[in-house]
Amino acid sequence: MQSATSPKNLIRLRDLPLQELDLILERARSLKLRPSPNEFAGQTVGLLFFRGSLRTRISLEVAMHQLGGDTIELTAASDFWDLEDREGAVMDGRAPEHVKDAAAVLSRYVDALAVRTAPGARSWDVDRRDDEIATWARYATVPVINMESSLWHPLQALADRMTLKEEFAETAGKRVAVVWVHSPEPASAAVTHSFLDMALRDRMNVSIAHPQGYELDSGVMRGLEEVAAKKGCELRTGLSKEEAVEGADVVYARSWQSLETYGNPTLAASRLSRTNDWMVDRKLLDSGQSARFMHAMPIRRNIEVSDEVLDSAESLVYTQAENRLHAQKALLLHLLKKQA
Amino acid sequence: MQSATSPKNLIRLRDLPLQELDLILERARSLKLRPSPNEFAGQTVGLLFFRGSLRTRISLEVAMHQLGGDTIELTAASDFWDLEDREGAVMDGRAPEHVKDAAAVLSRYVDALAVRTAPGARSWDVDRRDDEIATWARYATVPVINMESSLWHPLQALADRMTLKEEFAETAGKRVAVVWVHSPEPASAAVTHSFLDMALRDRMNVSIAHPQGYELDSGVMRGLEEVAAKKGCELRTGLSKEEAVEGADVVYARSWQSLETYGNPTLAASRLSRTNDWMVDRKLLDSGQSARFMHAMPIRRNIEVSDEVLDSAESLVYTQAENRLHAQKALLLHLLKKQA
Amino acid sequence: MQSATSPKNLIRLRDLPLQELDLILERARSLKLRPSPNEFAGQTVGLLFFRGSLRTRISLEVAMHQLGGDTIELTAASDFWDLEDREGAVMDGRAPEHVKDAAAVLSRYVDALAVRTAPGARSWDVDRRDDEIATWARYATVPVINMESSLWHPLQALADRMTLKEEFAETAGKRVAVVWVHSPEPASAAVTHSFLDMALRDRMNVSIAHPQGYELDSGVMRGLEEVAAKKGCELRTGLSKEEAVEGADVVYARSWQSLETYGNPTLAASRLSRTNDWMVDRKLLDSGQSARFMHAMPIRRNIEVSDEVLDSAESLVYTQAENRLHAQKALLLHLLKKQA
Repeated sequence: MQSATSPKNLIRLRDLPLQELDLILERARSLKLRPSPNEFAGQTVGLLFFRGSLRTRISLEVAMHQLGGDTIELTAASDFWDLEDREGAVMDGRAPEHVKDAAAVLSRYVDALAVRTAPGARSWDVDRRDDEIATWARYATVPVINMESSLWHPLQALADRMTLKEEFAETAGKRVAVVWVHSPEPASAAVTHSFLDMALRDRMNVSIAHPQGYELDSGVMRGLEEVAAKKGCELRTGLSKEEAVEGADVVYARSWQSLETYGNPTLAASRLSRTNDWMVDRKLLDSGQSARFMHAMPIRRNIEVSDEVLDSAESLVYTQAENRLHAQKALLLHLLKKQA
Repeated sequence: MQSATSPKNLIRLRDLPLQELDLILERARSLKLRPSPNEFAGQTVGLLFFRGSLRTRISLEVAMHQLGGDTIELTAASDFWDLEDREGAVMDGRAPEHVKDAAAVLSRYVDALAVRTAPGARSWDVDRRDDEIATWARYATVPVINMESSLWHPLQALADRMTLKEEFAETAGKRVAVVWVHSPEPASAAVTHSFLDMALRDRMNVSIAHPQGYELDSGVMRGLEEVAAKKGCELRTGLSKEEAVEGADVVYARSWQSLETYGNPTLAASRLSRTNDWMVDRKLLDSGQSARFMHAMPIRRNIEVSDEVLDSAESLVYTQAENRLHAQKALLLHLLKKQA
Repeated sequence: MQSATSPKNLIRLRDLPLQELDLILERARSLKLRPSPNEFAGQTVGLLFFRGSLRTRISLEVAMHQLGGDTIELTAASDFWDLEDREGAVMDGRAPEHVKDAAAVLSRYVDALAVRTAPGARSWDVDRRDDEIATWARYATVPVINMESSLWHPLQALADRMTLKEEFAETAGKRVAVVWVHSPEPASAAVTHSFLDMALRDRMNVSIAHPQGYELDSGVMRGLEEVAAKKGCELRTGLSKEEAVEGADVVYARSWQSLETYGNPTLAASRLSRTNDWMVDRKLLDSGQSARFMHAMPIRRNIEVSDEVLDSAESLVYTQAENRLHAQKALLLHLLKKQA
């Protein structure tokens, strides 16, 4: 359904000021205790998946159900035709519908659109522009929620922030080690980007460790350095995993693909073969300061992290996953406020 | 769930007398203003897709959600086994279930069945009989709603009627031009048939333009001529697009496939290649009388209609799409009335 | 959502004592008369399909809808990654997630998990262990409901029991003939196993007829013989279909695959070709004692059973299918009881 005023979107977590974030997560904590139904009776969120998802889809579906609302799911593989996105295009090709028309019509049916885009994976210079999610936000007249784009995964960072706030009385000043880990199928760096941005805005001190060739996007790094400078906290990079974890309060593990071999699977596999020792095990975790272990899942056990760490009392991974649900409910209540 | 009395079906819009249509659309208009939830708590509509759909599926799902009910979706590609439909068949072939048993059991579970059939596309003489949708209506004991068959698309015509009634104080006597437009993938004529039938029953004067070889089904045309004669309104055909639109109050654009090349893609493509100039542009629309532009979507921009027309104030296409939702809600309230 | 105490599961119908079964089915009968909505507002059942389903999926979706709750569906083909299930595995293969992590996280989102497993179909000795469903029950912290495993189909047996109780004032002592019937695609014996176990626990006298080579699993048979001995009722096997049906009150038809040719489609097809005369027709049914006809569907008409029998007044098949809905609603109310 259409709103008279311009809708709020969530493309990056940074789109929300910290005060708003705090209000949202306060509500998330109260929803965790008492999942008040029926706020969203008769309301529907459209979930548009141009790439697959499991945790994100289910946690959003359940979030709406628990609040008395519903979701509809649109999956590129089975439901979608190709969508044209060039302005003024003469549409004699494969795409029978323009994204502006799809966004306009969907906005008449649903109360928000959550979108997971599928970058072409040919050129990082193109994909890093995140044009797809911006196009949906431009044409939709209901709030657009980013369920993961090339650069950002704000819903994961929102749940991670909730988890950190539950764990520490005060997060500012805490030391976080972000450690690249090996995986035969590394994810994108979107989760890492959103986590780093959130941690720095909360004045946490950040150390990043990764093998050579797995440097993060230089444009994103410049942005993070600015946040760190403004907030007066540390942002160290280029470290070994041992250097990064020493004295850390939190170890956040994540596998991301190399931008140097982006779009080249053969080269990427060759480079990856030399990173087998990048795993979080007991010894590494113990070099922190009673360090908690975090991971956004899915997890390849005994490749990314040892069973011993994952099943330890220090592991927050199931709590992070559960908090996806509560944080998203609070976010939906924030974005879909009725005019009334 | 089963009903004691024979259920109401909606196979053609014609199945509903105009007085009933008016009551339904009056309710649709009040639902557009205030989408009253919870009429359908605990009720479910089964959506059976033997062919894909996007607008129809989403608008029906949202319609049920907004009224407090639910849908279940059954998609031929992934969910269905083949269904046998011959009476007395010895079922030793691919089909492990008879449509009469599927319809009987589904009727015990859901409160209505909406069906989109997939004609075989080998022979128009066979497909034009619309046997599939009739079979579901025969065996189901709950209302059956046609989500598009070979011949009819009543849900689109219902929304189109709502849109016309919102636009004109009086629709009787208005001049409607139905203009065939070029598309690399023309649709079936089902939308056109249902729209024409509805317009004539509402005493609108109709002009039809299409390239040679794209004549509408002769049986359907005979039926339309009878309606026109009975209602005392004009039904002109075989016109150029310029002749049809001259003085029109409404231009309804639609691409439909040629019956002369039905089931023969090579011939169809060859014929289609000679129709590239069939598009609605500003100049054509301006030859009408402040003519509104209508289209049932999806739309190939700058092939079927120019950006200029589609994005103009005269374009009703988004309203048509939105009215699918409101009109369907009113229709469901009409068909699924509780016995109380 | 997680529960403090250990959740109730339903893997085999035998997991529920007869007194509990009677309470559940009493509630099912009252739900059949008055489908009270809104008990499950805000609650969600996760449906995990490692193999397809139609009746089971729809009846569970509608069951939750009618009680004010929701389902989410996860289908192996489209939604799932492979799941690792070995303890301590080094996960460098295809599976990017361990079933223990998937079960733990899903348990934080949903209120129950219903699972249909897909046995590997290579070795019956392996598949008969039913490891998959046991693994889900071990790792989930919410109730796990078996939607059909290699050995058991408790939801069908629950509905069958409801149907028998509606039909007979007293089921104990009634004579049931379980008759193997021919089908080009025989099902597993899971329905047969659960039905037999339920019938014997209710002190019905059972006769089983099947062609040579279609003997039931010897381990299951030993268990059934123990039940029969304890309950003091008859369990006869190795009969011709005429011997089994003579004097029977109920004829339960089902096609199941041969364990001797398990995992060998060529041999299985060859053996199957000699069983064409195994069908339930009027003459066979009439040799019973006003025998009712039962079948769990889907049904190949005039192959498994003649039209004449299936469409007769003695046929309970649509009632069995409908009772899936009511019995499952009562079961969900039993398993998902709120702590409150």
